[in-house]
Amino acid sequence: MQFKNRTHTCGELREKNIGEKVVLNGWVSTRRDLGGVIFIDLRDRYGITQIIFEPNHNQETHNAAKELRGEYVISIEGVIEKRSEDTVNLSLTTGTIDVRADKLLILNKAITPPFLIQDNIDTNEETRLKYRFLDLRRAEMQKNLFLRHKMYQSVRSYFDENDFVEIETPVLMKSTPEGARDYLVPSRIHKGKFYALPQSPQTYKQLLMVSGFDKYYQIVKCFRDEDLRADRQPEFTQIDVEMSFVQQEDVFKVVEGLMKKLFKNVWNKELKTPLQKLTYSDAIEKYGSDKPDLRFGLEMVTLNNVFANTEFKVFNEQIANNGIITGLKIPGCGDYTRNQLDVLTEFVKKQGAGGLIWMRVKKEGLEAPVAKFFTQDEKQNLVKSLNARTGDLIFILTGPRLKTFSIMGSLRLEMARRLDLIKKDTPPSLIWVTDFPLLEWDEETNRYYAMHHPFTSPREEDLELLETSPGDVKAKAYDLVLNGNEIAGGSIRIHDSSVQSKMFKALGITKEEAELKFGFLLNALKYGAPPHGGIAFGFDRMVMLFTGSQSIREVIAFPKTSSAISLMDDSPSLVSDEQLNELHIKIKK
Amino acid sequence: MQFKNRTHTCGELREKNIGEKVVLNGWVSTRRDLGGVIFIDLRDRYGITQIIFEPNHNQETHNAAKELRGEYVISIEGVIEKRSEDTVNLSLTTGTIDVRADKLLILNKAITPPFLIQDNIDTNEETRLKYRFLDLRRAEMQKNLFLRHKMYQSVRSYFDENDFVEIETPVLMKSTPEGARDYLVPSRIHKGKFYALPQSPQTYKQLLMVSGFDKYYQIVKCFRDEDLRADRQPEFTQIDVEMSFVQQEDVFKVVEGLMKKLFKNVWNKELKTPLQKLTYSDAIEKYGSDKPDLRFGLEMVTLNNVFANTEFKVFNEQIANNGIITGLKIPGCGDYTRNQLDVLTEFVKKQGAGGLIWMRVKKEGLEAPVAKFFTQDEKQNLVKSLNARTGDLIFILTGPRLKTFSIMGSLRLEMARRLDLIKKDTPPSLIWVTDFPLLEWDEETNRYYAMHHPFTSPREEDLELLETSPGDVKAKAYDLVLNGNEIAGGSIRIHDSSVQSKMFKALGITKEEAELKFGFLLNALKYGAPPHGGIAFGFDRMVMLFTGSQSIREVIAFPKTSSAISLMDDSPSLVSDEQLNELHIKIKK
Repeated sequence: MQFKNRTHTCGELREKNIGEKVVLNGWVSTRRDLGGVIFIDLRDRYGITQIIFEPNHNQETHNAAKELRGEYVISIEGVIEKRSEDTVNLSLTTGTIDVRADKLLILNKAITPPFLIQDNIDTNEETRLKYRFLDLRRAEMQKNLFLRHKMYQSVRSYFDENDFVEIETPVLMKSTPEGARDYLVPSRIHKGKFYALPQSPQTYKQLLMVSGFDKYYQIVKCFRDEDLRADRQPEFTQIDVEMSFVQQEDVFKVVEGLMKKLFKNVWNKELKTPLQKLTYSDAIEKYGSDKPDLRFGLEMVTLNNVFANTEFKVFNEQIANNGIITGLKIPGCGDYTRNQLDVLTEFVKKQGAGGLIWMRVKKEGLEAPVAKFFTQDEKQNLVKSLNARTGDLIFILTGPRLKTFSIMGSLRLEMARRLDLIKKDTPPSLIWVTDFPLLEWDEETNRYYAMHHPFTSPREEDLELLETSPGDVKAKAYDLVLNGNEIAGGSIRIHDSSVQSKMFKALGITKEEAELKFGFLLNALKYGAPPHGGIAFGFDRMVMLFTGSQSIREVIAFPKTSSAISLMDDSPSLVSDEQLNELHIKIKK
Repeated sequence: MQFKNRTHTCGELREKNIGEKVVLNGWVSTRRDLGGVIFIDLRDRYGITQIIFEPNHNQETHNAAKELRGEYVISIEGVIEKRSEDTVNLSLTTGTIDVRADKLLILNKAITPPFLIQDNIDTNEETRLKYRFLDLRRAEMQKNLFLRHKMYQSVRSYFDENDFVEIETPVLMKSTPEGARDYLVPSRIHKGKFYALPQSPQTYKQLLMVSGFDKYYQIVKCFRDEDLRADRQPEFTQIDVEMSFVQQEDVFKVVEGLMKKLFKNVWNKELKTPLQKLTYSDAIEKYGSDKPDLRFGLEMVTLNNVFANTEFKVFNEQIANNGIITGLKIPGCGDYTRNQLDVLTEFVKKQGAGGLIWMRVKKEGLEAPVAKFFTQDEKQNLVKSLNARTGDLIFILTGPRLKTFSIMGSLRLEMARRLDLIKKDTPPSLIWVTDFPLLEWDEETNRYYAMHHPFTSPREEDLELLETSPGDVKAKAYDLVLNGNEIAGGSIRIHDSSVQSKMFKALGITKEEAELKFGFLLNALKYGAPPHGGIAFGFDRMVMLFTGSQSIREVIAFPKTSSAISLMDDSPSLVSDEQLNELHIKIKK
């Protein structure tokens, strides 16, 4: 198709261009026919420029412009004019000029789109995903992807400047499910055999350290065939990093440098480093979460000491069973009504709590149904421990340790939401959570699982516990938490093949199984593996947080639904028998 | 593990550091025990530094150093000393100094590697691939991957500077096999349905143009389940580019800018642009290839005119059958022996030629078995057409057009090899090949296939031929050819849904099939698709050529064999019945 190259984009013309003859190409964003004069807002990725078609100026072009409809793709030639005072549009960067059209060429027509190409539409997400190619025309979606672009470049230039090597690792790899499910790819050449898509390039990046690459990074797609939660995708993007001859603090320094750069480049904010560190146990105890949001206070306080000798049966039973009593003070909410408190009691019950103990702090003492079970001392100590004042509200939960902390953590977040504690201008909170347990016990399968992954190094001082009391071993593992979201997780890895074998043993993986699945890595560790460690960032989530989006689907060009479907092209889809035959597989009846 | 952070890498210490106390971490590259003094070449990614352990200096450390073996990972502390004149090693950047060791810590031991960690080893490739983590320790492999890293960054910064947006497209997509085979991924959630891995993000990048992103790029993994040729991998890396509102020349300009930058950054060479353009038909006729190597001459000449009225039966039969007669002059080879010529005859016969006609150009005329069949005029015109001189050798092949040109093209390359026409300092040849046929006929399936892909735009002037004489339609398609290797291919795309439908029809794809496979794209073209076009580079091959490697496996960290196996981790591999059950598939007996 013959058409003229644009001389300018639709976002760049200004008053200084007045009088110039220009060619613009773009989409008809709006079209108004005002008593014979036709106004077009011409849109491209760079902006919007107003075009004017006047019958007196050029009858033929004006006639042609009558045909135009929304989303037509056109090329126009014309001259830049100053807008009259009353038509200046300061919401457009080009709002002081327009283009008087001499020529119009329709490059492509468009049928009526199923929704308007503008911000803040209330179209349901299914329709937006089915017509993603139109949804992505909307300025807010384009803004998200441009910011994502900027973040890719910032991340890469940071690692490049810091001597990291970008290395691509295979997408077709070995299936070694350990934790999440692998996506499998049948081999045509090798009947009955399968590749797996990487859940992460973990083993490869460790092998690259054995190879001496010293500092590696990659922005890479990873895959997990999990039942999707709201904010998960079957394929997701990871910033993958690994370093040799490092301790935990060295990884922190590199990551903090990156975050400093992103805070600056994206938010124009200075990030103060080193970042705050919180151990996993402190995070759980104070915030009921291993990814605490510290943009607000509301710190939980464990009250077992306060009630160590209580006669209140609910408490002393829990204390006897290694349970905990945790308290949360909500300043200034001592006037919450019974009704409000009932709603919050429902909230914690839904999460499995037996009930919610509440107390209003009054001038005359604690007002609560349970107050009568406590001694004067207990009441005083309670108020002291929580540093509570008249007018405050106190919540207490008791029960098994982890579960109870976690429910109180949810209540903490819920109260922050109700009290609107996180404002638009609240400074972001970025912290490290450290010293995770190495293993977690799974009741269902009756075995330990690696809390991070099976290559995470235990702390030296806990090495012996690995055989005697695996559940107590702490790992050299760390998470980076932004506003209550885990955005990266990593660890110092095991670089000693005998420790790696012990780890597999603790996980109930037999020697044979370890050899079959991870033999190449165990083998590699014997040929001179340096101490090494690293981290992986969930890039989609990072972009979501940096753009202020509500879902990772808003920052992924072509996402899938929560049932892993692409609504645009209807994948996954049926394939031909011929294809299946070639792959030596058939579908089970 | 407790160890000190390195103060320097093994590549950075110089004479100016003499007297400094340093910590180095690295691998024992070599170890020599010279009458009590132990010398270690300590290696890391950055270089090699010599470490000296002397019993007089530190008995304990010297004793510990006796334990060291090749590839042990160690940390040493010591002081930089000037080397004596006779021990200076100018082949090392650190060769004027060494480190007298005060402390030694073994960070990890190493068993004996299956091959030496050095350049130019003659170990077979299988062993190198099985122990890839050791193979990658070798300086030449590291150099390749560092250059690859540099090329990633150059490519990305180029596109970033030129307003291209980096956008990731899905890896789990719809299966639409058209040409090559898809790799399939069974869906667990949707029984009997499959995703496919992308052969290229072609449809997505076109949709991004429909979305108005205007300029897109991505460095992306693509997948083809093909029987592998020597230089193919099941997964490969592509630089994917697409632009809106462009003609062919606009794409050329952008690509030439990129190549200019790479020539400069990688080779420190100035690339002159615009690049030479050659039509597909010229390339085939003059060089017998659509990816001609123009680093040397040896241009083929079609001789049908010379022999238009010949009585030589072999020729006039071919002329009558639309066959061709092609000649190639080899300057100065008129003394080739019968034996040498027999070898070359064998060479062309193996490729399907009936035979090779050769003629020695002598002072007294053409010397050849066939000379007697030609008239004096024919001989004169032949010599004239080829601009042949005394002492030259002439080859002639005749037969069906494409096949015969192609065999002569191979002979051309073979002669260049034999005559050593491509020297180390021969300037590289980078050219465009243009005006490809849109379709090629496949005898086996009795249908046309898209020579590039089904979204390639025909030339406007050929549009009508699409229905009447599809084989004659030329495409707005182009390849970029470096030293006889296709490194990129692209086209202006069809942006009109009715033309796209015609194209599917020409390909014998029914309306229903087109709707089922590409409905989303056909649909998208109806909502205002801009004119657009793009290109995709084979990044692995580019890196291979820029590093001067012989195979793409030398520039991929973890490549697969030609039967698509990873020898390191033995994938593809068997998976558990449980995994297959969850995916609702079973292996065919």
